[in-house]
Amino acid sequence: MTYQALTPETLADYLRGVPALQTLLGDLDALDIVEVGDGNLNLVYFVSSRSQPGRSLVIKQALPYLRLVGEGWPLTRHRADREANALLQFGALCPQHVPAVFHADSAQSLIAMQHLRDHIILRKGLMEGLTYPNLAEHLSTYLAQTLFHGSDLYLSAAAKKQAVAAATNTELCKITEDLIFTDPFEDNPTNAYNPALPRAAIARVHQPEVRLAAAQMKWAFMNRAETLLHGDLHTGSVMVNPTDTYVIDPEFAYYGPIGFDVGLLLANLLTAYLSQDWHRVQAGQDPAPVQAWLLGQVAAVWDGFADKFTALWAAHDAASATSFMGSARDEASQRLFREAFMQQVFHDALGFAGCELVRRTLGLAKVAEIAGIPDEAARALIEVRTLRLAEALLLGRDDFQFISEVIDLAQECRTLTL
Amino acid sequence: MTYQALTPETLADYLRGVPALQTLLGDLDALDIVEVGDGNLNLVYFVSSRSQPGRSLVIKQALPYLRLVGEGWPLTRHRADREANALLQFGALCPQHVPAVFHADSAQSLIAMQHLRDHIILRKGLMEGLTYPNLAEHLSTYLAQTLFHGSDLYLSAAAKKQAVAAATNTELCKITEDLIFTDPFEDNPTNAYNPALPRAAIARVHQPEVRLAAAQMKWAFMNRAETLLHGDLHTGSVMVNPTDTYVIDPEFAYYGPIGFDVGLLLANLLTAYLSQDWHRVQAGQDPAPVQAWLLGQVAAVWDGFADKFTALWAAHDAASATSFMGSARDEASQRLFREAFMQQVFHDALGFAGCELVRRTLGLAKVAEIAGIPDEAARALIEVRTLRLAEALLLGRDDFQFISEVIDLAQECRTLTL
Repeated sequence: MTYQALTPETLADYLRGVPALQTLLGDLDALDIVEVGDGNLNLVYFVSSRSQPGRSLVIKQALPYLRLVGEGWPLTRHRADREANALLQFGALCPQHVPAVFHADSAQSLIAMQHLRDHIILRKGLMEGLTYPNLAEHLSTYLAQTLFHGSDLYLSAAAKKQAVAAATNTELCKITEDLIFTDPFEDNPTNAYNPALPRAAIARVHQPEVRLAAAQMKWAFMNRAETLLHGDLHTGSVMVNPTDTYVIDPEFAYYGPIGFDVGLLLANLLTAYLSQDWHRVQAGQDPAPVQAWLLGQVAAVWDGFADKFTALWAAHDAASATSFMGSARDEASQRLFREAFMQQVFHDALGFAGCELVRRTLGLAKVAEIAGIPDEAARALIEVRTLRLAEALLLGRDDFQFISEVIDLAQECRTLTL
Repeated sequence: MTYQALTPETLADYLRGVPALQTLLGDLDALDIVEVGDGNLNLVYFVSSRSQPGRSLVIKQALPYLRLVGEGWPLTRHRADREANALLQFGALCPQHVPAVFHADSAQSLIAMQHLRDHIILRKGLMEGLTYPNLAEHLSTYLAQTLFHGSDLYLSAAAKKQAVAAATNTELCKITEDLIFTDPFEDNPTNAYNPALPRAAIARVHQPEVRLAAAQMKWAFMNRAETLLHGDLHTGSVMVNPTDTYVIDPEFAYYGPIGFDVGLLLANLLTAYLSQDWHRVQAGQDPAPVQAWLLGQVAAVWDGFADKFTALWAAHDAASATSFMGSARDEASQRLFREAFMQQVFHDALGFAGCELVRRTLGLAKVAEIAGIPDEAARALIEVRTLRLAEALLLGRDDFQFISEVIDLAQECRTLTL
């Protein structure tokens, strides 16, 4: 069948042709089909049985253009294959944090997957001031499992090179290259500034030293094929409830630097932190408890990730005849390498976090917790703090040793005034 | 025709089937065909017309095993395609320094190319104490032209990603990964030590800090897909005469870090420098003049490469609507980025040079100017100096700012005694 963007009507017909999905859903004549896609790129349908409420699934179909902009920004549908492959690979590594894939159809650029019925988008939960007791524990497990197993530390050199070539994802990488690393760092027409944001605050991140840092992070993003990344791991790509955490939407998946996913996630926890000063106060609440919890999550995501990644690596080396360093049983060298390696990933993550913070403030695709603040002056205050945090991370990334220093910095930026 | 390793007899038959080569050679019934392959991987024939001495060419054919070791180390012949592609690409960028390709046959893993009749292998010339007035000028041009034009600084992001995927060269990269970055840094059975070399000298480069540096350079080699490299740019891959310089044998070509080719070349100029204390003295000559010339070449290769690479980059940015950094005409930021970028390439090159120096001393594939010194004690002295230079480059690579500091270091290492 040639590709066709599905409507609720044609989707029902499509489901009839896939026995596995029929079995999952039961009665195909009594389905609720709702389009819920609020992302930038795809159609997303919730499909559920009216008679048997437990039976449901999600259908995600790639559109041949950037939904955020419209048909004027065409995109191939290639990304649906990238997403299906990434979901399968990440799901095999940590099934408890990745939605199950029931069916993937390359011709229709379509994936049928687990419906996370009792979960909400993490970004939304955080904006409401909700906290999740297992969040950092789960996300650090996800990061360590996925980022370690795609790398040369685990795979054979041949398997890794094959995986790199197979993960080429030119179009979606281009979006990241432009919208995270380039446009926000100059006065580009794709940017959108809050009118109340002082010009001087924007000019600070358009200074040569900050632009240098952004260009270096862009170079790292485009050249360092270290592991299969999610590629877009912000808090809108995480679904949660008090017990579960799922990472969805890896259509930007490609081989890139290990610190990229980590950095994007940390940056989005930091925008959640800084923006509570508006959202909690609006809700008549004290922001302090949720802010303290959020900074605790920043620390626990990094430390948990670093500990688990290192543990996976050490266990793999101990169980293998040869490791990345060679065949000698030389624990002193291996420990030294692991420590230096994790320090480098930390610095990379902070640099990527800095870029993400700038783009979420000045760039085309913003974050709801900041862009959604209706009071422009109040929004500008949060934006100024976010940009200062970004600047300090970008310029100082190689000087940080512990995540506690990042937390101190975030607290300091939170006290800035316009 | 299925693949067949050619003999002088079957090669003559083969030539009859390729009109372009017939035209080049003229009378196919009066050919001199000599097998001259002294490399590790291939058959190499010089084919010349007996009646018309100006007519000749080189036929290079990949063997399905590592010639150095024998049929017990099988290799696919895939590398012949890599070499043909690299010769064509590099040749288009600087035809004056790359042999012309007349014919490439993927099925026979065979390339017919320009016969460099009046040229010798640079390593041989340097061992004889010869100097070449244009060497650094030519090699720095070659390096700048080839390394710049394969990178994201010149290519569109899409073209670059396609080029990366097309240049996958798993088997030959594995040789480099093992024989340059891994085995020499531990007591691996592939190593071969001069019996007169003190155990303590070997132990110094098997220390955790040096192994850490080697592992970091290996990580860079395996993960940083920055540009299409020659991949094996030692002085045995360069052919010279007093006026010309050609870079041959790019079968290890793949996308890797810009500093790799530069570092390998610098390392091989440094082994030429250190080994003159044997070769010139043996020939009853003063080593000082050729050593001074060699250190001058080290400086001129680096400085020439850095200047030309930067100039190509600046000219490209000036002529383009957008550059790697964006669309803003912001010369201050671009200059800052270029300087930081070249400094990073310099540090990388020194790290790669350090690895190359260790492997050429302790590893499987050595260099004739050191391994060919028959007096074991005299050889050990040169080896100790080479290893100390390597160690200082590996441990201090990020602290060097100018090539003059490397030259001071090399001169200092030259005074070491056993």
